[in-house]
Amino acid sequence: METVLTGITTTGTPHIGNYVGAIRPAVEASTRGDARSFFFLADYHSLVKSTDPDLVARSTLEIAAAWLAAGLDPDKVLLYRQSDIREIPELAWILTCVTAKGLMNRAHAYKAAVAENEAGGGKDADRGITMGLFSYPILMTADILMFNAHKVPVGQDQRQHVEMARDIAARFNHHFGETFVLPEADISKETAVLPGLDGRKMSKSYGNTIPLFLPEKRLRKAIMKIRTNSQLPEEPKDPDASTLFKIYQAFATPEETEAVRERYREGIGWGEMKQLLFEYVNDHLSAAREEHARLLAAPDHVEAVLRQGAEKARAVSRPFLEEIRSRVGLRPLG
Amino acid sequence: METVLTGITTTGTPHIGNYVGAIRPAVEASTRGDARSFFFLADYHSLVKSTDPDLVARSTLEIAAAWLAAGLDPDKVLLYRQSDIREIPELAWILTCVTAKGLMNRAHAYKAAVAENEAGGGKDADRGITMGLFSYPILMTADILMFNAHKVPVGQDQRQHVEMARDIAARFNHHFGETFVLPEADISKETAVLPGLDGRKMSKSYGNTIPLFLPEKRLRKAIMKIRTNSQLPEEPKDPDASTLFKIYQAFATPEETEAVRERYREGIGWGEMKQLLFEYVNDHLSAAREEHARLLAAPDHVEAVLRQGAEKARAVSRPFLEEIRSRVGLRPLG
Repeated sequence: METVLTGITTTGTPHIGNYVGAIRPAVEASTRGDARSFFFLADYHSLVKSTDPDLVARSTLEIAAAWLAAGLDPDKVLLYRQSDIREIPELAWILTCVTAKGLMNRAHAYKAAVAENEAGGGKDADRGITMGLFSYPILMTADILMFNAHKVPVGQDQRQHVEMARDIAARFNHHFGETFVLPEADISKETAVLPGLDGRKMSKSYGNTIPLFLPEKRLRKAIMKIRTNSQLPEEPKDPDASTLFKIYQAFATPEETEAVRERYREGIGWGEMKQLLFEYVNDHLSAAREEHARLLAAPDHVEAVLRQGAEKARAVSRPFLEEIRSRVGLRPLG
Repeated sequence: METVLTGITTTGTPHIGNYVGAIRPAVEASTRGDARSFFFLADYHSLVKSTDPDLVARSTLEIAAAWLAAGLDPDKVLLYRQSDIREIPELAWILTCVTAKGLMNRAHAYKAAVAENEAGGGKDADRGITMGLFSYPILMTADILMFNAHKVPVGQDQRQHVEMARDIAARFNHHFGETFVLPEADISKETAVLPGLDGRKMSKSYGNTIPLFLPEKRLRKAIMKIRTNSQLPEEPKDPDASTLFKIYQAFATPEETEAVRERYREGIGWGEMKQLLFEYVNDHLSAAREEHARLLAAPDHVEAVLRQGAEKARAVSRPFLEEIRSRVGLRPLG
């Protein structure tokens, strides 16, 4: 059975675009039973971006609660917090020793940071760049290789990191014998990109998002703000040019979507469509929203879930790290 | 009481220059009782240079045996193998996130490797350079900060690494509150540099060394090869220009040294002086040599000594890492 490993960024509040594009398909895939699914909260990685300890801790709780509320079943998948797997940073050091510096020089995220410094006219191309940013791909490699994942579902922007993991795994295998599976990036083909309030792709950087677990009133308010054109009620409208329709389609069944498409042809008014969308999304999310609130109020329970997941994951990582250590020469004497 | 931390490279066979310049003074200092002494076998570091697992494992045994045979008392100091302290690579990752890449760019060892590539006319300045070489100073920082060492006895070539550790500690303290002692390099003033067979500094790179635990016959043979000038017996000789004298001086008491100085004035022949030096050094080292052989034949015993040391060290590193984790936000939820 294939192993699929999904890393979950613990910074930021998830929005409905994340839900539709990443959380829901990952949860669905994990229930299919055709793969062993590992999900981890990437809190070691969050240290690269944040020196605010309360934010780091709070975000882990919020994101864990969001995925659990969205239906991730910790009895069916391995869900763990990266920083509970003490074997990962140790593996990262071992991999660091077989990783060419040139490989890291070519990482997109690092090159983008250098380009920004150079565009700013500064003399120091590495200004403000930490070793965390620079060697991040090695830690991600350790995340993947620690559990010999075959597939890593990622967005296009992360494809290079999985290729680097493959490269490092191959180099280790070359020096020390077959040890690691060569992982593959699994780039989703549907790329369900949801438009945001202003019609552009929903993204935190555009400030056009609808947070996933907004309370009902604020969800309604947000949906009422979605940009439409100036067509009047009863004018026939183009559903495929409508943000409201696209969001509806992302949540509804094909039959429901077809029915609303018909309403567009008949000239449904924007106000009515907004109300219809709000009610649909609200119905769809209300149970998860309540569960999310319940989990946020029960951090000890979430902690216990993550610890159990960590125990299951360490049942794999502990003996495997011992094998890896032995392969590189870190062995008991005698 | 001050904490003094000494890292022991686990590659290569120690020679009598290492013994006189590093091992003996460190062992002596550790018996003074005016500091808490930590000694560790730097086997994680050895992975930077070696992809030969048997060599990595064998070297650890040989070097541990050498230091124990030279008198290091594991009941008086903390002697441990770096790779037994699983907290170290984890701390290294946490420190990686607060380390400026620019700091690593300026490391002498890295710059020397780049300069060599550039002198070779290659286009890739980072050719053959691993991330292990590049980020080595961060791991060394973790070694030092993990035990809040005040002093780190090092050679001049390692001074910069201790300064980097100081820098990284200060940056961490700035972000997360006073956590780490700022360590200081302790550069030995006497710098007991022993000349080798050819009169130049005894060094593996010159191929002019006398290994520390040579069997008696080979020790004699090595000493007989030490270069002298063409002065005849009975000619008065200059002790301070004589390799034989300098080596003798490094082992003998001041009174004994003075007596041999007098023999030089009287014109001791080189053959006689070589015999005298051999007998003296052989007497001085024979007990340690036997102990070293005994330990090499008892790897399980050395393993047990190192494990005990690791337990003592982890009694410090485990709770301290938990504190550090909490400071950066890696905390139990709730």
